[in-house]
Amino acid sequence: MSELTHFNEQGRAKMIDVSDKAETTRTAIAKSSIIVNETIHSQITEGTNKKGDVFAVAQVAAIMAAKSTSSIIPMCHPIPLTGVNIHFEWNIDKSSAHYEVLIEAEVKTKGVTGVEMEALTAASAAALTIYDMCKAAGKEMVIGPTMLLRKTGGKNGDYKRQF
Amino acid sequence: MSELTHFNEQGRAKMIDVSDKAETTRTAIAKSSIIVNETIHSQITEGTNKKGDVFAVAQVAAIMAAKSTSSIIPMCHPIPLTGVNIHFEWNIDKSSAHYEVLIEAEVKTKGVTGVEMEALTAASAAALTIYDMCKAAGKEMVIGPTMLLRKTGGKNGDYKRQF
Amino acid sequence: MSELTHFNEQGRAKMIDVSDKAETTRTAIAKSSIIVNETIHSQITEGTNKKGDVFAVAQVAAIMAAKSTSSIIPMCHPIPLTGVNIHFEWNIDKSSAHYEVLIEAEVKTKGVTGVEMEALTAASAAALTIYDMCKAAGKEMVIGPTMLLRKTGGKNGDYKRQF
Amino acid sequence: MSELTHFNEQGRAKMIDVSDKAETTRTAIAKSSIIVNETIHSQITEGTNKKGDVFAVAQVAAIMAAKSTSSIIPMCHPIPLTGVNIHFEWNIDKSSAHYEVLIEAEVKTKGVTGVEMEALTAASAAALTIYDMCKAAGKEMVIGPTMLLRKTGGKNGDYKRQF
Amino acid sequence: MSELTHFNEQGRAKMIDVSDKAETTRTAIAKSSIIVNETIHSQITEGTNKKGDVFAVAQVAAIMAAKSTSSIIPMCHPIPLTGVNIHFEWNIDKSSAHYEVLIEAEVKTKGVTGVEMEALTAASAAALTIYDMCKAAGKEMVIGPTMLLRKTGGKNGDYKRQF
Amino acid sequence: MSELTHFNEQGRAKMIDVSDKAETTRTAIAKSSIIVNETIHSQITEGTNKKGDVFAVAQVAAIMAAKSTSSIIPMCHPIPLTGVNIHFEWNIDKSSAHYEVLIEAEVKTKGVTGVEMEALTAASAAALTIYDMCKAAGKEMVIGPTMLLRKTGGKNGDYKRQF
Repeated sequence: MSELTHFNEQGRAKMIDVSDKAETTRTAIAKSSIIVNETIHSQITEGTNKKGDVFAVAQVAAIMAAKSTSSIIPMCHPIPLTGVNIHFEWNIDKSSAHYEVLIEAEVKTKGVTGVEMEALTAASAAALTIYDMCKAAGKEMVIGPTMLLRKTGGKNGDYKRQF
Repeated sequence: MSELTHFNEQGRAKMIDVSDKAETTRTAIAKSSIIVNETIHSQITEGTNKKGDVFAVAQVAAIMAAKSTSSIIPMCHPIPLTGVNIHFEWNIDKSSAHYEVLIEAEVKTKGVTGVEMEALTAASAAALTIYDMCKAAGKEMVIGPTMLLRKTGGKNGDYKRQF
Repeated sequence: MSELTHFNEQGRAKMIDVSDKAETTRTAIAKSSIIVNETIHSQITEGTNKKGDVFAVAQVAAIMAAKSTSSIIPMCHPIPLTGVNIHFEWNIDKSSAHYEVLIEAEVKTKGVTGVEMEALTAASAAALTIYDMCKAAGKEMVIGPTMLLRKTGGKNGDYKRQF
Repeated sequence: MSELTHFNEQGRAKMIDVSDKAETTRTAIAKSSIIVNETIHSQITEGTNKKGDVFAVAQVAAIMAAKSTSSIIPMCHPIPLTGVNIHFEWNIDKSSAHYEVLIEAEVKTKGVTGVEMEALTAASAAALTIYDMCKAAGKEMVIGPTMLLRKTGGKNGDYKRQF
Repeated sequence: MSELTHFNEQGRAKMIDVSDKAETTRTAIAKSSIIVNETIHSQITEGTNKKGDVFAVAQVAAIMAAKSTSSIIPMCHPIPLTGVNIHFEWNIDKSSAHYEVLIEAEVKTKGVTGVEMEALTAASAAALTIYDMCKAAGKEMVIGPTMLLRKTGGKNGDYKRQF
Repeated sequence: MSELTHFNEQGRAKMIDVSDKAETTRTAIAKSSIIVNETIHSQITEGTNKKGDVFAVAQVAAIMAAKSTSSIIPMCHPIPLTGVNIHFEWNIDKSSAHYEVLIEAEVKTKGVTGVEMEALTAASAAALTIYDMCKAAGKEMVIGPTMLLRKTGGKNGDYKRQF
């Protein structure tokens, strides 16, 4: 005789139900960074990297990654993004030979879930792309810390990181 | 002189127009199954499969497949899913050495088309993933039958499979 | 001491913000074409191409490409398409051995951005697929010109190409 | 003081190492099937399905699914396929109103892993696509059983299913 | 009694078997083009397009499209590309207000099939991306003709387009 | 009269030619990390996170991300991975309420380019997935630093990070 045994459901992965969440305008800003060496800094600022304009390619990578976040992050809901914006800034201390690219990714949607993951994924993709384009000149680059800076919209209210 | 000849349009593939369908909450539940041998049953329940926790990986595969259904099924409309849930259950009859995993995939959306295909694709992906992770211990596994159990929402009313 | 240097933002890529655009029904029709040789024309019309029914495969390719436009075109917003339709027509002038497939792709959505890119991408994918399936019989095929014929919906009003 | 705790590695998912496996020609044939009603049978054979030529679209879906198997099945190794072939056959018993499409998917590679998963995924995608295109005429269709029929190549020798 | 009926196999789509083809270095160069208006020409050359550096984004789009060719073109074999290079050139005749971007895509592999489709797809994606970024300043842009210029490698010898 | 103007090629993006690089066995190990709060630590270790078993899902996400690296990182060459392995370890200091997940991703291939990017992308995807599954219990999590630990294979010799 056949017998049914329920699989222990604790820990079962699911994409949780958000059908009842309201569609509102939502934004999120995440930051990442990458520390590079002096040669890489020169390559980027002088446009001599042999794979191309590093920041231009990294921006495109970040925007495309934001759009494909729900296919990279398993439990993340798909939402149609309405805007993505990527900023770079150099944080340099020549006395200590510190060359660091600060990366900020801002994502916007009109949807039922927040866009934290899209912003974090975009910032990470920008950093990874910079690593890829510059690694011939030094593999010791360090990516991050990567974190959420701010978010607006949604029923839980706005969030602003306290440092 | 040039001449225009219309291609015979009968049988022409198209993604049919659903612009006028109402956006409502819709759910669908599909089932599949996979018959395995005793060794595979032990591997899964004892956690000794060398590729990992079989049901955990299959759940993730199913959820990700649900989200990419419209890129697998050519005429299927893209819709943003609001929830996906995958259940496993063992149907065992030791007297006949019958070890079968029952798979149920439940998908939810707030959209203009039903989510039958997403539920069926998720259930199929779960079964295929179990096959992949266990095939070193026996390639005679049998997947399915795979079918729609229930659906709700949409103008054609609800559907419940009669056995 | 550390110093911040803003990256020159001119030319910075971004997916522009469309959060405030209204969701309306939008359509776009694009055309492309491909000039083939007589052998290829026979293969297509007689169904003797060894890779399959050329127009049938090209239609599927076009519909699937329409759905993945925002992952091919970097700054293009993702929008859920509600309908895609692909038409083929032969433009033949036997006296000059001119065999040309005219391709029309019609795309529809209920969304915040137009679907010109989806229609143009679908028409291009159809042409590329015809090239791929027929290239064993002649690589001199010419694709295009490819252009937008018409669009409706959105705040900028309708567009109709003037020839 | 900080302390390191190893995560219990039992059940940890991994894509197992196949670097040492030899690159050989490998083939796999999988079968699936779908039982449809009489109306659907007529639509398919008479070419009156409003979404297009059902078998033509299903073949394309199956071939494309075979190529994307490693992005659907998490622990499956990516391998460049060298050939994919999909066959359909009707199994009909009018006396019992039984209309069934038999689906066979044959996949070939020259690689380090077998292509069972690619063949099973292709056969499943064909069945799912038939379901999608015909579901307006009856949702009670049943997919499968789906199974591996044969495989050749690789160090474990050939496999042929015993019924 | 049940009866089997073979589906008419003429016109059946397949990804043809290339298992026996030799792995050699192969290259292909394709060209496309896009005619723009004077305003768009200024935007591109002066870097004032509000979506970003048009050629920089188009290059990235082209390279990424080359890599995903086998998922866009259904019967195209997947091959690991070893190099992709995109060139732009302006063809301008101010007396007739003719502003045209010439696009050349060069693709390289060490594989069993040629890379014509990858080069043609890359050139098309570059043109489509330029269209997308500039369409706010004029939708009358014309893409193409798009064609293969040259290919090397493979048993059928080299090909060079005769104009 | 028409005139050709070469686009300034400095900074032009390209996927550089690796056709002449030798196919060898290559490995890379990257690390990332994520600092979580005490509640999240409990959820993970006690299996009470409502989205599922956090580490199990993160492992799958990391392995799938490794396989799709060349579609996330624009100038990265596609290579068929032969193995991927993800490790987690807790680094805890209760006195300072420090709860940190250490993530190590090990990737292997037999190919013409290194797999640094695949390892770094896998580690990043694992961290992002942990963030996604736990963000309901605290958005202040910090990802990284993320870096390359080791690589072997290829003509430039092995690399081992010096701390």
